[in-house]
Amino acid sequence: MTSAREARPRIGVAGATGYAGAELVGLLVDHPAVELAQVSSRTHAGQAHREACRGSNCELTLRAELDATELDVVVSALPALEAAALAPAWLGAGALLIDVSGDFRLRDPLLYRRWYGADHPFPELLEDAVLAVPELCPKGSGARVLALPGCFSTTTILACGPAARSHLVDADVVVDGKTGISGAGRGAGEAYLFSELDESVLAYAVGGHRHQPEMAQALSELAGEEVAVTFVPHLVPMTRGISVTCYLRPRQGVSRERLVEVYQSAYRDSPFVHLVDQPAPTKLASRTNHCFIHLALQGPRLVVSAVLDNLGRGAAGQAVQVLNWRLGLAPAAGIGRAPQWP
Amino acid sequence: MTSAREARPRIGVAGATGYAGAELVGLLVDHPAVELAQVSSRTHAGQAHREACRGSNCELTLRAELDATELDVVVSALPALEAAALAPAWLGAGALLIDVSGDFRLRDPLLYRRWYGADHPFPELLEDAVLAVPELCPKGSGARVLALPGCFSTTTILACGPAARSHLVDADVVVDGKTGISGAGRGAGEAYLFSELDESVLAYAVGGHRHQPEMAQALSELAGEEVAVTFVPHLVPMTRGISVTCYLRPRQGVSRERLVEVYQSAYRDSPFVHLVDQPAPTKLASRTNHCFIHLALQGPRLVVSAVLDNLGRGAAGQAVQVLNWRLGLAPAAGIGRAPQWP
Amino acid sequence: MTSAREARPRIGVAGATGYAGAELVGLLVDHPAVELAQVSSRTHAGQAHREACRGSNCELTLRAELDATELDVVVSALPALEAAALAPAWLGAGALLIDVSGDFRLRDPLLYRRWYGADHPFPELLEDAVLAVPELCPKGSGARVLALPGCFSTTTILACGPAARSHLVDADVVVDGKTGISGAGRGAGEAYLFSELDESVLAYAVGGHRHQPEMAQALSELAGEEVAVTFVPHLVPMTRGISVTCYLRPRQGVSRERLVEVYQSAYRDSPFVHLVDQPAPTKLASRTNHCFIHLALQGPRLVVSAVLDNLGRGAAGQAVQVLNWRLGLAPAAGIGRAPQWP
Amino acid sequence: MTSAREARPRIGVAGATGYAGAELVGLLVDHPAVELAQVSSRTHAGQAHREACRGSNCELTLRAELDATELDVVVSALPALEAAALAPAWLGAGALLIDVSGDFRLRDPLLYRRWYGADHPFPELLEDAVLAVPELCPKGSGARVLALPGCFSTTTILACGPAARSHLVDADVVVDGKTGISGAGRGAGEAYLFSELDESVLAYAVGGHRHQPEMAQALSELAGEEVAVTFVPHLVPMTRGISVTCYLRPRQGVSRERLVEVYQSAYRDSPFVHLVDQPAPTKLASRTNHCFIHLALQGPRLVVSAVLDNLGRGAAGQAVQVLNWRLGLAPAAGIGRAPQWP
Repeated sequence: MTSAREARPRIGVAGATGYAGAELVGLLVDHPAVELAQVSSRTHAGQAHREACRGSNCELTLRAELDATELDVVVSALPALEAAALAPAWLGAGALLIDVSGDFRLRDPLLYRRWYGADHPFPELLEDAVLAVPELCPKGSGARVLALPGCFSTTTILACGPAARSHLVDADVVVDGKTGISGAGRGAGEAYLFSELDESVLAYAVGGHRHQPEMAQALSELAGEEVAVTFVPHLVPMTRGISVTCYLRPRQGVSRERLVEVYQSAYRDSPFVHLVDQPAPTKLASRTNHCFIHLALQGPRLVVSAVLDNLGRGAAGQAVQVLNWRLGLAPAAGIGRAPQWP
Repeated sequence: MTSAREARPRIGVAGATGYAGAELVGLLVDHPAVELAQVSSRTHAGQAHREACRGSNCELTLRAELDATELDVVVSALPALEAAALAPAWLGAGALLIDVSGDFRLRDPLLYRRWYGADHPFPELLEDAVLAVPELCPKGSGARVLALPGCFSTTTILACGPAARSHLVDADVVVDGKTGISGAGRGAGEAYLFSELDESVLAYAVGGHRHQPEMAQALSELAGEEVAVTFVPHLVPMTRGISVTCYLRPRQGVSRERLVEVYQSAYRDSPFVHLVDQPAPTKLASRTNHCFIHLALQGPRLVVSAVLDNLGRGAAGQAVQVLNWRLGLAPAAGIGRAPQWP
Repeated sequence: MTSAREARPRIGVAGATGYAGAELVGLLVDHPAVELAQVSSRTHAGQAHREACRGSNCELTLRAELDATELDVVVSALPALEAAALAPAWLGAGALLIDVSGDFRLRDPLLYRRWYGADHPFPELLEDAVLAVPELCPKGSGARVLALPGCFSTTTILACGPAARSHLVDADVVVDGKTGISGAGRGAGEAYLFSELDESVLAYAVGGHRHQPEMAQALSELAGEEVAVTFVPHLVPMTRGISVTCYLRPRQGVSRERLVEVYQSAYRDSPFVHLVDQPAPTKLASRTNHCFIHLALQGPRLVVSAVLDNLGRGAAGQAVQVLNWRLGLAPAAGIGRAPQWP
Repeated sequence: MTSAREARPRIGVAGATGYAGAELVGLLVDHPAVELAQVSSRTHAGQAHREACRGSNCELTLRAELDATELDVVVSALPALEAAALAPAWLGAGALLIDVSGDFRLRDPLLYRRWYGADHPFPELLEDAVLAVPELCPKGSGARVLALPGCFSTTTILACGPAARSHLVDADVVVDGKTGISGAGRGAGEAYLFSELDESVLAYAVGGHRHQPEMAQALSELAGEEVAVTFVPHLVPMTRGISVTCYLRPRQGVSRERLVEVYQSAYRDSPFVHLVDQPAPTKLASRTNHCFIHLALQGPRLVVSAVLDNLGRGAAGQAVQVLNWRLGLAPAAGIGRAPQWP
């Protein structure tokens, strides 16, 4: 091993055998500028990663827990509550934490309790955590805990963030989301069997979904005022992909052109977010870190539709993007795959 | 043939080889109280229906045009513009017309021109046409032209009609629709190939869709005031099924209970519209005439989600329902099939 | 209740909440000549059937066990081993048994032990059980136990039975099967999640599958000599449907015409089995009791392809067909639904 | 442009806007050792490739025809007959030809006429063309025309080639194939609409398919004796993926272990062909150049199942593999993408 290689940041992935975790491992194995040093899984500890996950090309053996003293960064794909429980140990050992779960997204511990059904074990960590969407966050984060928004939230924040920040729209948005089934994870139950879901669409969480407060928090912070969000997700019969269609109300006299300028300006430097002339199908983003956004006016409303891959930009891809961003690596390192069709 | 059989109303189906037309033929072949007497198709004239359509059990030979002098009712599944062109001849021969296309839905000829790209050839027929949703129309229609709302419109009118009529909500609704691909018809092109659509969701007509003015017209008439409708449809990878999720704003102090009462009252006598405790998957309505509606409050908004089969209650099933309604037959005659799962 | 109604045979369904059981219940609720009198489910005992199964229109309450003293026929959709354990009680109470599981298909208890991993608890019942495929069985069965072949076996026996019986082909057949996922049942695990199976085909049981000895037994009995069967099933991403493609070798000088005659003769009186000019898609049989068979010669081989719905003719539909056959009812009573497309 | 870059072989892709052509373009844009210099499409000439193909990141403008005097290699994804018509011009200009179509696969012009319905325009080119499957061809081809086997043929040749070459099996094989719909191409018609194919399996070409003579030719050449092939393909509802299950008969006394050794030896050096312990789902190969092969004995038969991506290893990926092989580049250059799941 060359000294250059040794100098590469050492990354550990916790929860490495779920869908998002395994996707992360695949991206990090091929990442040119970091070293995937450890992978953990409580249920598969002792197995090689390639035995535990279809398609894996990772030769590491799964540990029951990461040893963060040997790591520069922990990327956790553990479920909510499990990540929070381990975070102090990881941080105490000197590692940064990039967390895919919902444990560090909400600033308000009361909101956390409402949506996760338990008190946050370390609410003091919430204050300094950053809800990280690199395109819309201020440059140069020094945060030690970087939380990824949920897959629906990421799509919605990218779709509505520039409009909210610009004050060109009312502070009230309706978000209708559609997700592929992999969002339910590898351990999902009867309701996620093929036979239950194929040839069917199903609205769920119509009274409220965990991602709604994330959206409201992020858009409110961008807007500098409280933004109301109504959000309903739907299961659609596909494995990967998120589509959100957002209904906003432009303020008096705001043209589509003005809105397009604002979005172009927001995403000019992004290798991943693309404004498109026609709404894009989710499959165009499949297995990539790309996000496609379209703006239209329909009568008095602005319709913003956005698509991405829930396991890519919605989870593992975004985790790597945030890793690159936090460590000052090339933005597309390890996540530069282009779209393919069909 | 017994005289009782001879006394059964004689029905002709125009455009009998498209997806909706063939579904209609199948329902009418098995209908206990009417006689399917003629079927037409310009492209398949001269062929037996069972040769032209997979799964058909109809022995009739397809004509180029119906002879309405021999018919009591024409059910037309022709495309827009074609139905309107033939309507005067059918009506002049004494037949009633039940039309699946968009030709007789909009009262306003200017709106017709805007959405169908041509002047309506017989605008005088628009005045007396009824946009027929039996559950929400006054009893005992004597209309000679009964237009079915489009598949999205039917679902939306059923979902929002009771609320609009009750004035318990603001006159402004956002409707997010998801449709199976069969809505595009048997003659659809490259964009509807399996490989283009599978594993993908696609928003379309984001700037405005033909069904929007139907929804606005129907809901406005029910409300007695102008109801604004914003509507965006999405293609999802399934053959049959429509899901709409509607976002309304209840007026001050209106409870979910009050809304549920209004809906229960509206659909108490319907064999087809069901209020459910959890949102239903579209597949539950597949190949039936049923519609499942769910109400939820989320923050300040009322979320109404509804599902049905676009070829069933959204087209062919509803045509038979309207036929039964107009002729005073049993409401579920020929369309009583129960749901199946999965 | 009229006395005519009281005279209708009383049917109980054991295992009424799995996919096949629920399908059976739906068919029997609407059956014109029998009465669905009891339904059982150990896991859902005490619930109404319509609470336990999506789409159910059965008002009966699920019992933990059937009381066969009140029944004329038990139709069991319980898993293998569970059906066998209860059979003596049902038969002892005077009921006939129609069994969907594998418990009474194989005549040879040693084969049973090999494929089901346990000794048959009542091997003496195997002797008089009939593997019931009405089209190919002698008329007028008086058997007390009627076993349905598995879904793959039913399709294969229908596809190859006439050829085997005619001795126009060699006694060696390769059967390649493709099944929809509902065959795995409502209680299937991680391997049957949507995300694991969509956009994918998977061969399984390549070294041998439980249905192979059923096929071999049935075809051997029809042929009067031992027929070798090689069988490999595949999971394909659809909910319902079985397709088998069978590779046989016609004996010297046997023409396609001769083979077609044999098949036409075998199925002339069947309302369900259809010889078709082109191979049929499985969806044509979906939610029906129909089976479509096609014959082709390719070089030295006869290719017989057949399709049906695994939950219809492959399970619940066939159970009703056997019920009708055994009780001397109209063959299509309760299972006369025509194909629909798409 | 550096001189190193100028020294890279210059590649042109003919037929660059079909599914296979566009996939090729995507792979070559990112290929580290060649330069994609020209792309052609008669129907889209004059457009930028990225306008003509969803997901393209190729900035080149499509020409009506390639100018082969500027190219080292033409990779043609034109349909059969079109490729053959242009081949002499390309070769005359000094370019090598790698052809995805069926025009140079069959050595025998009579067979070509039978399966392609026309005389081959330049039968003299057939003699020196190589049917290129790098793992099974002799090293160091100097051929000027390299034909790729069809997607089914590639899979079958990889699945059966080692067994055929070893003489451990009889010279008679039954091949049952299942393909994703993208194999029908971007210009496919009504039969390939989503609604026609979803939730369905369909056998086709049961009397004989164009890929059968390729399989027979390739396996016969490997075996040094005539190998009989019976082949039936099936459409399954997925976009990408090929699965073949092959039924062979091992010669007396040949064990599975012996067969596995033969396969391991054949594929030891391949980065793409993997022997697996359980049959692999097609999705594991999706968007990669990998092929997974499994061997099982079932009674007297050897069952070999193999999967790959029809647009990857079955077309575009294999074209790049053959390019690398012919030009002496690293075998996995440009096609090294690892599997992902799900």
